[in-house]
Amino acid sequence: MQVSTEQLFTEARTQNGYLPIAVGDEQLRALYELLKWGPTSANCCPARFQFVRSEAARERLAACVAPGNVAKVRQAPVTAIIGMDMAFYDKLPQLFPHVDARSWFVGHEHKINETAMRNSSLQGGYFIIAARALGLGCGPMSGFDHAKIDAAFWAGTSVKTNFICALGHGDPAKVLQRNPRLSFDDACRLV
Amino acid sequence: MQVSTEQLFTEARTQNGYLPIAVGDEQLRALYELLKWGPTSANCCPARFQFVRSEAARERLAACVAPGNVAKVRQAPVTAIIGMDMAFYDKLPQLFPHVDARSWFVGHEHKINETAMRNSSLQGGYFIIAARALGLGCGPMSGFDHAKIDAAFWAGTSVKTNFICALGHGDPAKVLQRNPRLSFDDACRLV
Repeated sequence: MQVSTEQLFTEARTQNGYLPIAVGDEQLRALYELLKWGPTSANCCPARFQFVRSEAARERLAACVAPGNVAKVRQAPVTAIIGMDMAFYDKLPQLFPHVDARSWFVGHEHKINETAMRNSSLQGGYFIIAARALGLGCGPMSGFDHAKIDAAFWAGTSVKTNFICALGHGDPAKVLQRNPRLSFDDACRLV
Repeated sequence: MQVSTEQLFTEARTQNGYLPIAVGDEQLRALYELLKWGPTSANCCPARFQFVRSEAARERLAACVAPGNVAKVRQAPVTAIIGMDMAFYDKLPQLFPHVDARSWFVGHEHKINETAMRNSSLQGGYFIIAARALGLGCGPMSGFDHAKIDAAFWAGTSVKTNFICALGHGDPAKVLQRNPRLSFDDACRLV
């Protein structure tokens, strides 16, 4: 599928409001079918996703987020919860079958935490770019109560919330002024 | 610029060897000029990049990585060190000027660490997809000694290494068999 770097990066904007256009199951499946191919270390794929769309689930989520994010969660057609499975290593015999990669992690709590966080965030980056490739606008948020979302959405699992991201057809009228970025010379060195 | 989702996701592969084609300054600048637009929380942009290309720098880096990655670092035309500035909040008056966002972080070590890791990893995801958009192959690696790279490349700064990523024109003959991914139903829920 043809896309442009303008659509993905240079002209893409974080959305703060959404047009009343639903996001269908097939779009969410297409999103996962793109992002899943992004690389993770030892193919560990720790990210898990809940797509919050029903009225009841949306209210449950709205009760867990910072005051400034309540209206966004209520208004967006979908808000995705991007979680990280802290027992991701139990899937390694399936995902990285040629060596015993599970044994690299079991009992090494610091390595588990760091690997889950780094790689589920990488997958979060793939998620945002893949959504934009499919014509969806994104409103990523980290202002919420982690323990509350974990209890309300991941109870009984080994998954913890990393961040959340509203999805939909963005309302251009609600986009804020663009903030500056660091220059190449401030952020990069050639050595 | 036109690109395709095949090039970015579905047909893109992690590279394990590189053709003898140099990667120029202008390509590395173009890469940063794309990835910098990817969203981060409060526009905190914690990622910092060193592009390791010279013979001396490459040997310095090769001495810090796991045995299985030494040849990759020696052979790739460039290996990028993706770091995270643990004092990223000092740039918030410039990057997020309309509120005092710096005060949200100063003295809150857990929040600083989590924000730096989450957002520099998100930017790592943007980095990989932007490199592929520019026709570069990527070989991300997390098998290395963090303290050694920090000492060898970030001494005297507030930056710590997140992961490293070889860049170049991949040699199709060196690509490994593709590992499976989790199905939509294993990784996602519609609620």
